[in-house]
Order: sequence, then structure tokens, then C-alpha cells
Amino acid sequence: MYTIEELQLLISAEIEKEITLLEQTNPKNLYGPVAYALSMGGKRIRPVMVLLSCNLFSKTVDAAIPAAISTEVFHNFTLLHDDIMDQAEMRRNSPSVYKKYTENIAILSGDAMSIMAYNYLLKSNQEVLEPMIRLFSQTALEVCEGQQFDMDFEDRKDVTIQEYLNMIRLKTAVLLAGCLKLGAIAANAPGQSADLLYAFGLNLGIAFQLQDDLLDVFADQDKFGKKIGGDIVSNKKTFLLLKALEISDDITRETIQNWYSGKDFDEPEKIKAITNIYKKLNIKEITEAGINEFYQSALHICNEINLPPDSKKELLRLADMIMIRDR
Amino acid sequence: MYTIEELQLLISAEIEKEITLLEQTNPKNLYGPVAYALSMGGKRIRPVMVLLSCNLFSKTVDAAIPAAISTEVFHNFTLLHDDIMDQAEMRRNSPSVYKKYTENIAILSGDAMSIMAYNYLLKSNQEVLEPMIRLFSQTALEVCEGQQFDMDFEDRKDVTIQEYLNMIRLKTAVLLAGCLKLGAIAANAPGQSADLLYAFGLNLGIAFQLQDDLLDVFADQDKFGKKIGGDIVSNKKTFLLLKALEISDDITRETIQNWYSGKDFDEPEKIKAITNIYKKLNIKEITEAGINEFYQSALHICNEINLPPDSKKELLRLADMIMIRDR
Repeated sequence: MYTIEELQLLISAEIEKEITLLEQTNPKNLYGPVAYALSMGGKRIRPVMVLLSCNLFSKTVDAAIPAAISTEVFHNFTLLHDDIMDQAEMRRNSPSVYKKYTENIAILSGDAMSIMAYNYLLKSNQEVLEPMIRLFSQTALEVCEGQQFDMDFEDRKDVTIQEYLNMIRLKTAVLLAGCLKLGAIAANAPGQSADLLYAFGLNLGIAFQLQDDLLDVFADQDKFGKKIGGDIVSNKKTFLLLKALEISDDITRETIQNWYSGKDFDEPEKIKAITNIYKKLNIKEITEAGINEFYQSALHICNEINLPPDSKKELLRLADMIMIRDR
Repeated sequence: MYTIEELQLLISAEIEKEITLLEQTNPKNLYGPVAYALSMGGKRIRPVMVLLSCNLFSKTVDAAIPAAISTEVFHNFTLLHDDIMDQAEMRRNSPSVYKKYTENIAILSGDAMSIMAYNYLLKSNQEVLEPMIRLFSQTALEVCEGQQFDMDFEDRKDVTIQEYLNMIRLKTAVLLAGCLKLGAIAANAPGQSADLLYAFGLNLGIAFQLQDDLLDVFADQDKFGKKIGGDIVSNKKTFLLLKALEISDDITRETIQNWYSGKDFDEPEKIKAITNIYKKLNIKEITEAGINEFYQSALHICNEINLPPDSKKELLRLADMIMIRDR
């Protein structure tokens, strides 16, 4: 079995090869931004998930490499277009694509990347091609749905926890789940195992996103990549906020709503006020309990996959890595 | 055999069904704009081409309906994103999607449409699925390349006729060609016939785009949908302009370049000046000769398709319709 770190090296080298090819492909203003977007890096979590899952059922991971590249290209396509929509000028300490090039070039390069994700996937072995494309295409559309729900929530005041969980399932979790299942399909794994891996990824993905919400407020600033309280400043509907609105008394709820209805506020003051309310309401502990619930579900499902426990070691390490987020 | 008009009715009914479904699908802000984009109509040329081509080899066209819908969804996706990029507020006398909704919603709905095009295609019969998806995905990426070349040309002064023809091949012709080949594949047509239909569509598509360039300047305003001289006003590099630059003497070339280098000009005056230069240089006749060359190539290729001449009648009528553009 490969370790996560070995798979990261392996897929990074494959992606680097593609980047080099893309940099030489015309039109330069189409493929240059694609190469740039892909070179911004990150931990290549999604393609590693594809390969790792394949490796559970197959000694070699070659059969899953096209799918792995495909998921990374697709994920970076969503980031590219998200950055336009959010007017996010920076990504991983570099100018985002629309900022480095133009908005039009970013729209079109993103469009190309979403198509290229299919083209990479089409390099997979013929006998597994159809189920892989079906899964990928379904997943890709769900990610768009999740993104739209997220955008809709910005303007809504009545978002329920259930709606929120559905949104993060679509926006974040289905792709992680899909990556694991793609790898399993590439390795000709039994259908039941592939489905269990999908369910494992889904629960892990939701736990991961809830953790992301939590860290935005309660992370150690030194370890956390982003600015603490970013979600509070940007009025984002997070699990923490929705839970606080759900369980608070009328007066506290009104205080929260006042902070979130105005656009003119002192940022540190708002962060402090909302954080204090969260503390008073035990939101940290409640969210941790929620995270743990999904995480334990994931582990439970992992347990059910019909494989020797020893071979699941790296999968569980990956789950740990995703959750601890020691970046 | 179905007539073009019968196929238009047939596919319009199918697309209407999809629109009704989409209007009821959540998230409304994702699928509503998709339904709106699809309901803006047009002549459904591309899906008709898919069905017509299928009908050349098969009595029924059912097998080609998913691919037909797919091409229409894809085409409308490109229009949707093009309208954002061109800041075109109107499309077919209605507000364009980004104008009716928001730019962010338009970006995301377009993204969804491009994925949905694959999902529709995935409803095709399993035994022809793989070659159809390969062809579609390759074509889709080429359309993006064509769009980027077109955008690049806006800022370039040294575009050659050859580069221009390559651009319109990618931006316009490959999709028409792909539609014909998709229909042929859906009908399990012999590979050679499918390839000839592709080549026929490619030549027809280039002729069509050159005709579009020509009509922008020399159309009868009453019959022409758009404003005469739009390309001249917007400084668009067209076949007419590139040909004029190629064959004019130095003084005339400088006059043209002066008109195209300034942004402050009287629109009717510029249209008149450039049109007069075109007339002096016989650009209309030269372009007509170019159109005819590609059109005759198309007819020649059509002749080679191994089918009874009588069965090609509607295909040739379609070619005529596309070229006469009697909308």
C-alpha cells in the first residue's frame, strides 16, 4: 500500500506534467490560466482520495490516475469561478485567476477546465468509463447546486440547520465522497464497497465543513491559515450562527440579528460580540458534538467495508488529517 | 424521413418538457435561469442537425434525442457565458440571463448547463455512449478555444485570414459538424459516413460564419435581425476586414487602421467609410467567393456520403436554410 505522502508525491508529479503541457498549448490565454490555477497547489486531497481508494482494491493506482487528475481539475475550476463570484482577489497567497488575468479570461478558462475534467476522466480504462462518467457528472452538478444554495442563503433569514447540512453535503461532501467512489470503481471494487466508501466520504465531508465553520471562530490564529472571524464579518450563514439563532432566547436572537442586518459595523467588535454569544450558548461544544457525530458515522461505515482492517490504515489517517487540518 | 420542420416541432416539444421540469427543480436560482436560457428559443438548428443526421440512417430518431437536447443545452450555455463576457444586455429581444438575474447566477447557471449537457448525453443508448461523449467533450473544448482566439483577436493587429478561418472553425463550425456526427453515431451509422457528415458540417459551418460576417455589412436591413454594421462599430476582426487589410494599398490600409484605432468616432460615419472601402476593394464579391468555396466543398462531401441521393434532400435543404438565413 502507498502512504498518503507517497500518493501526494505521485499525483503532484502527474499534475506537474499536465501543467507543463498546458503551458505550451494554444490559445495561451485559455490554457495559461488553467495551468496557473492548477499550479497554485494545495494538498491535492481529492486526487489523493481517488488514488488511495483505488489502492484499497488494487496494488497499482495507475488505473485511477486519470480520474484523480479529473477531480483536481474540477475542484480548481470551482475555486476559479467561486473567486470571480466572491470577488476574492487572493487564493493561497497568490492573485486569483480573474485578478491575474481578466474576469472574461477567468470565466472562459473555468469553462474549459470543467470540460477538461471530463476529458481527463475519458482516459480511464474503457470497462469502467461509463459508471465513472455518470458518477462524476452527477457529482459535478450537485456541487453547482450546493454553491447556489450557499448563495441563496446569503439573502435568507430563515435557513434551517437541515437546509444548511444539505447545502454543505452538496457543496463540499459529495465531491469527497465521489472521489473515493471513483477510485473504487477504477479498481473494479465490489459495488457495495464503492457505495460504503461514498457514504464514508459524505459523512467525513460534512464533518470537515462543520469543522471549517468552527475553526473560523475558535481556531488558534497561529495555526489557522485564514483570519479568525472571517465568516462573522462576511455575514456568512454557518452552522454556528444557525445553531445560535435556533437555541438562543428572543433577546439574544435579536442582538445577533442586529449585528447581521447592518453593514456598518466595527469588524473586531462584531467578531467579539458574536463570539461571546457563541460562548454563552456553548456553540463550540454543540458544534464539536455535531462534528463528532458525522465523524463517528464515517468511522462506523469504514468499519463495514469488507477489507482487512490493516489495509484501511491510510484511509483512516486521511480522515484524521482532514479533520485535524494541521496545515 | 422527417422534414426539418417536423424535427423542429419534435425537438421543441422535447425541450419544452425539459424546461417545465427545470422550472420545478431546486435550487430555483440555478435551474430557473437554465430554463429561461433554453426558453429563449431560436431555431434549434443544432438539435435538428443531430436528429436529421440520425434520420439518414434510422427510421426513428429516438436514439438521438438525448444528444440533440445536449447540444442545445451546450449551445445555450456558450451564449449565456458569452453574454456576460460581451456585456450583451439583450438576446433575441429579451434580457440576457445575467441581466435578468445577476452575473453570479449567470456564471453558475452556465456552469450547470455545461455539466447538464453531459448528463443529457448520458441518457443515450449504452452501446454508442462512449464515442458520443468523446466527440462531444472534444468539441466542447474546441468551442472554448475558438472563443478565446476570438477574444485574443480583439487586441491583435496582425491576425491572418488563416488564423481567422481556424478561429471560426473552432468557435462555430466544429459544433455544427459535431451535431451531425453525433446523430450519425446515435444511429450506428458506418464510421466513414459519420466522418463525411462531420466534414460536411465543418465546411458548412465556416461558410455560415463567413456569411454572417458578410450580412453584418451587406444585408438587407429589413430581413436582417441585427443592426447593420454592428461588427464595424465594435471593431470586430471579421473576414471582410482582414481581407480588406490584406489586399488594400498602404494608404487605404492606413485609413482603415485609423478608423479601428480610435474609440471616439461617429458610428454611422465609420460604417459608411468602411463600407465604401469594402466596395472599392470588391470585398463583397471576394467574401461571396470564399463562402461559395466552403459551401461547394460541403456539397461535394455530401455527395460522397454513401446514401441514396433522395435521402439527402432534407440535409441539403438544411444547408440551404442555414446559408440563406431567411429568419
